[in-house]
Amino acid sequence: MIFTKTIYIETEKKGDIINLTHKIESIVQESKINDGIVHVFAPHATAVFALTELESNLREDIKKLLEDVAPEVGWKHGANAFSHLRSMLLPPDKTLPVRNGRVIRGTWQDLFFIEADTSGRLRKIELTIIGE
Amino acid sequence: MIFTKTIYIETEKKGDIINLTHKIESIVQESKINDGIVHVFAPHATAVFALTELESNLREDIKKLLEDVAPEVGWKHGANAFSHLRSMLLPPDKTLPVRNGRVIRGTWQDLFFIEADTSGRLRKIELTIIGE
Amino acid sequence: MIFTKTIYIETEKKGDIINLTHKIESIVQESKINDGIVHVFAPHATAVFALTELESNLREDIKKLLEDVAPEVGWKHGANAFSHLRSMLLPPDKTLPVRNGRVIRGTWQDLFFIEADTSGRLRKIELTIIGE
Repeated sequence: MIFTKTIYIETEKKGDIINLTHKIESIVQESKINDGIVHVFAPHATAVFALTELESNLREDIKKLLEDVAPEVGWKHGANAFSHLRSMLLPPDKTLPVRNGRVIRGTWQDLFFIEADTSGRLRKIELTIIGE
Repeated sequence: MIFTKTIYIETEKKGDIINLTHKIESIVQESKINDGIVHVFAPHATAVFALTELESNLREDIKKLLEDVAPEVGWKHGANAFSHLRSMLLPPDKTLPVRNGRVIRGTWQDLFFIEADTSGRLRKIELTIIGE
Repeated sequence: MIFTKTIYIETEKKGDIINLTHKIESIVQESKINDGIVHVFAPHATAVFALTELESNLREDIKKLLEDVAPEVGWKHGANAFSHLRSMLLPPDKTLPVRNGRVIRGTWQDLFFIEADTSGRLRKIELTIIGE
């Protein structure tokens, strides 16, 4: 069985972090699929998905890590080179297991979107739930 | 067809590497699924999966790389900030193809767990095999 | 429904980038699967997949990023340690949604192979399309 859903989120500025966990959990429940996987994907070349804790100090650490690994300046490809590079390292493509109609994740494991482009924008997210 | 299985592994200390390849291969055989995919996932916000060669010198290189990219110290979020950052960069979420009842992988491609937290612990791994 | 296909590509030298987008799109159309996912996987421990824009300046930036994050020299495991480390950070494992018989991706989102080993070689890619 396949259940698909498209959702939209709006980011306000560069670096915005949006927690998608509860939205994904409620769509998985809506799907009535008990066991399988949920695939979450953003069709955007400057978007990032991450899966870990989302505590306020750690948010600052995540921003620092992105700047350490792929700094904003020093690239050949225009102003948003870093956006593409971050989306390459942390791609907007994540799969989680589904059991008994619920998403399996760790207590501190949240799935969140990071706006890696130079400003906020409307972002599309495609969910595919496959199972029985 | 969906086949699911939960396994547990125990790490002894920070940085422990546990090769999961043979365990995953035997569960795929147990599933009787011939063609499809196997999704392997650890519901832990400080866990890492990696897929490449697992030779003893390369183990040292992997530890150095993790320290280069996300060092143990210098973060705002307590003692295990680096654990979360490493789990973000190398998430515990991997999908491999299944053909003729066997996992497809390269000769030197092993799937292994890296204990990214500050000490050893009991870790859960969820396998979902989807196919025919 | 499951549709599988094996393709081969040949790289000529280290760092070669091969755009797989159109090949994957045509195999998804061939599969006659309307809604689901396509999983793309290279069974090679020194191969990289990336998903973002593939513009000529950005190609240079991508090469610089790989060298910044996992430099060619300075490792214990022989001449291709960097190849394994890059394949670990950017694994050859990618999943995209399929809707109405087409791959969903962003306008600037191309899926490409990067030859991370020390020279060109013949590379295998396994596609698994799951859906209805």
